[in-house]
Amino acid sequence: MADKSEILIKFGQNLRNIRESKKMTVQQLDALTAIDHSEISKLENGKKSLELMTILKLCKGLQIKADQLIPSTIIDMID
Amino acid sequence: MADKSEILIKFGQNLRNIRESKKMTVQQLDALTAIDHSEISKLENGKKSLELMTILKLCKGLQIKADQLIPSTIIDMID
Repeated sequence: MADKSEILIKFGQNLRNIRESKKMTVQQLDALTAIDHSEISKLENGKKSLELMTILKLCKGLQIKADQLIPSTIIDMID
Repeated sequence: MADKSEILIKFGQNLRNIRESKKMTVQQLDALTAIDHSEISKLENGKKSLELMTILKLCKGLQIKADQLIPSTIIDMID
C-alpha cells in the first residue's frame, strides 16, 4: 500500500489538473465552493487530507463526478 | 443545501445498500478494509463523517468506483 502522503500528493495533483483544465483559479474555486483558497492550495500540494463534505463541495464546484476527483488509479493505491 | 446530518444519513444508507447487495456482513467488510466494524456501523447510520483514506478503503473493499459510493444524487445535496 502506498503511504498516505503519496496518496494525498496524487490526489492533489489530480485536483490541480482538473481545476486547471476548467481554466479556473484557486480563488475562483474558493468562491464557488466556500473552501478557503489556502486550504485548496494545501490540498493541491498534498499537505492535507479532506473529508466527505469537502469532496462533495469540490465535485459540485468543479462540476465533476466523484470518479474524476477520485479515479480508480487512486483507489488502487490502497492495497 | 441539505444539512450535513442529512447528507451523512443518505451516504450511510447508500453504503449499507451497497454492502448488502454484495451479501457482505459488517464484520466481513471490517476484515477486508481494516475499518473497525463499529465505525462501519456508525457510517451506515449517518452518525460519523469520513475522510479520503476511509473512502478509498471502502471503494477497494467493496470493489466499487467512487461514483457508486458518492453518487451524483449525494453531490447534488450540496447547493
